[in-house]
Amino acid sequence: MNACILTIGDEILIGQITDTNSGWIAQRLNAIGATVVKMLSVGDSEDEIIRGFDIAFQLADITLVTGGLGPTKDDITKHVIATYFEDHLEFHQPSYDRIARIFRKRNIPIRESHEKQCFLPASAVLLKNKMGTAPGIWMQKEGKVLLSMPGIPYEMKSIMIEGGGLEKISNTFKSKAIAHRTILTAGQGESTIAQRLEDIEQCLPSHVKLAFLPSLNRVRLRLSGIGSDQELLEAELEAEVKKIEDRIPDLIFGYGEDTLEAAIGKLLLAHQLTLGTCESCTGGYLSHLITTIPGSSQYYNGSIISYSNDLKKKLLGVSEKTLNTVGAVSEQTVIQMVKGGLQSLNTDICVATSGIAGPDGGTKEKPVGTIWVAVGNKENQIAKKIHIGKSRLRNIEFTTYYALNMVRLFIKEYYVSE
Amino acid sequence: MNACILTIGDEILIGQITDTNSGWIAQRLNAIGATVVKMLSVGDSEDEIIRGFDIAFQLADITLVTGGLGPTKDDITKHVIATYFEDHLEFHQPSYDRIARIFRKRNIPIRESHEKQCFLPASAVLLKNKMGTAPGIWMQKEGKVLLSMPGIPYEMKSIMIEGGGLEKISNTFKSKAIAHRTILTAGQGESTIAQRLEDIEQCLPSHVKLAFLPSLNRVRLRLSGIGSDQELLEAELEAEVKKIEDRIPDLIFGYGEDTLEAAIGKLLLAHQLTLGTCESCTGGYLSHLITTIPGSSQYYNGSIISYSNDLKKKLLGVSEKTLNTVGAVSEQTVIQMVKGGLQSLNTDICVATSGIAGPDGGTKEKPVGTIWVAVGNKENQIAKKIHIGKSRLRNIEFTTYYALNMVRLFIKEYYVSE
Repeated sequence: MNACILTIGDEILIGQITDTNSGWIAQRLNAIGATVVKMLSVGDSEDEIIRGFDIAFQLADITLVTGGLGPTKDDITKHVIATYFEDHLEFHQPSYDRIARIFRKRNIPIRESHEKQCFLPASAVLLKNKMGTAPGIWMQKEGKVLLSMPGIPYEMKSIMIEGGGLEKISNTFKSKAIAHRTILTAGQGESTIAQRLEDIEQCLPSHVKLAFLPSLNRVRLRLSGIGSDQELLEAELEAEVKKIEDRIPDLIFGYGEDTLEAAIGKLLLAHQLTLGTCESCTGGYLSHLITTIPGSSQYYNGSIISYSNDLKKKLLGVSEKTLNTVGAVSEQTVIQMVKGGLQSLNTDICVATSGIAGPDGGTKEKPVGTIWVAVGNKENQIAKKIHIGKSRLRNIEFTTYYALNMVRLFIKEYYVSE
Repeated sequence: MNACILTIGDEILIGQITDTNSGWIAQRLNAIGATVVKMLSVGDSEDEIIRGFDIAFQLADITLVTGGLGPTKDDITKHVIATYFEDHLEFHQPSYDRIARIFRKRNIPIRESHEKQCFLPASAVLLKNKMGTAPGIWMQKEGKVLLSMPGIPYEMKSIMIEGGGLEKISNTFKSKAIAHRTILTAGQGESTIAQRLEDIEQCLPSHVKLAFLPSLNRVRLRLSGIGSDQELLEAELEAEVKKIEDRIPDLIFGYGEDTLEAAIGKLLLAHQLTLGTCESCTGGYLSHLITTIPGSSQYYNGSIISYSNDLKKKLLGVSEKTLNTVGAVSEQTVIQMVKGGLQSLNTDICVATSGIAGPDGGTKEKPVGTIWVAVGNKENQIAKKIHIGKSRLRNIEFTTYYALNMVRLFIKEYYVSE
């Protein structure tokens, strides 16, 4: 089954919002064996949408559309769909009743714009949207399917999951064998890993591909294969995964949708350890990533974000002398932050960051992008200096992933028995 | 000038990475008067790329391509470009010398994959990439331009800005009059704002459009116009902006690329105030957003992230009695957190969050998504209860923007004289 994803909205084409819907939909389609052959973004104009439909219908069995279904004026998708499918819009009483019921409960008056929303293509199958007022619109013609949903991500997701969109797609089409494996690494760059895996890559069967997908301090290795027999294909990919695992065990922190922050959470839980963070230059991002993980309160106590030197002294016991001699961006400071954090936050392990995130504040000795990271427990502390670049956000994010990987390596070193 | 953005990579089509390049490029093109008519994502296959080129060249004067130019095997874009432009690849010595020089400095051996990278279309104009090894490839044929860049965002940006890509585009084409204004609001939903602006929207000239772009606790109002006279068009948009400002002054926190966190920074600086945060359920995200702003250390002291109840007591002085009776998710707790934070963090204003982010941990009285936020100075504290939903990330992010808006309204109330 070939799929095409079409996102509609001037706001996408002028770059005001980033389309995250397409990626989310693609992942789900992939999981049920569909191949996304194209993603397309077009503006809020009838002509552009029709041209988009033309391109999509030529290539794909199913076209998923997001955007252009909401309570405000700039929404025309619905009208275009009706025209394209030689249908017309009709008032849909159950949709209206549902909106009226919800609004009555919340004491909100129903607006004319919501009434207009209830005019829907007469031949559409409507899919429930638990998070909003516009339902998913499922149209079918000559074996081809179009599913149109609002652009707001959580509404789209609600239609796809609770509204049954994904299930309906899966039931409508049959799939051929396709499989993926993703191995997640941290600590080395794309070229170095590629070299370590060179012979493995060269010996891959021709229907299996290996791709290197770098992001900050991490590289994902994606194996993908296409075949006719699902079981056989899965076994082939597993064998390749095994080879890679044996070659670079030091770099692998997880698989598939794992994240470094989740991997650390699992390690901490497994060894009944608690973690605290003392952040300066990362400003809370480290703590944020850790606490995105459900259940993180079981191993994460909290953080002291000592953005000012005063707080480094007052809350973490960094010495005045250290700050006056070697400064806040130094090995001594991050080690003292770790020690202070272990006490203040009452944790087994603590990780600390201090650096010059930029864009200003650099000196000749410590240019913007100079950053110290330390991790430790009561007995052992390790500090590393890294140098990144001039972008504030990149410095914050890179340092955060670097710090997370240092925590991972520290636990492996001091708590995991071989 | 019409532009098309083409992103290449299987990793996009299977949803493993989100394409942020297109949005960034679109913003820059827009600023120089170009209209992005389509965005397109295709896989790493020769056929798909060629089909993408065909669609793009049919519509656009310039096609910007990202992805498929890097040191690993899954890169074929370059070969396709050469074929498409009836050109061939040639070894480019200066590119090789540059890579060799950089690698020598860093003591990294040069790899075969880097040598291969130096084979480039013979007729290409090469644009410098200060952040990586693959240059931008500028091809021109029959008045149409293609600019191909690596997919890694900071490399692409480096080619567009320092490498002169954007300037070269601007010089190559002339532009017609196009203008945008974006007004940023917080605190009310799309429908409510739409109703308050109903008559203004209805009286807009036909060549001016108003769009409502909602995100968490914020709505962007985007006015866009197309015309023949730039000056006239700008004046028309300004007049509409003025009408909207007069209608909803309470909701507006900024314009264009402003963010709520930057707006608060400006307010704090203007009134010489310092801010601290005490976070429980937001787990550092509030602090992170505040510290993404360059220079935030001038008004932001830091944060105590008291994820555990122990730290709420120890570091913020929340009373044992409060925690045992009304619990951590309560008006009393967030007010005590604010008071404790003012002392510990030594700031003029403090903001605190405590809630049940989920997905677990809810009770009948306090279901997942129940969250308290407080803001205050020594004299006055205000607490609000909000109820969001079941998604952990959405709860964290919504609460963070809600808290930022409470800080904004608090400063306006107590420090800004009319």
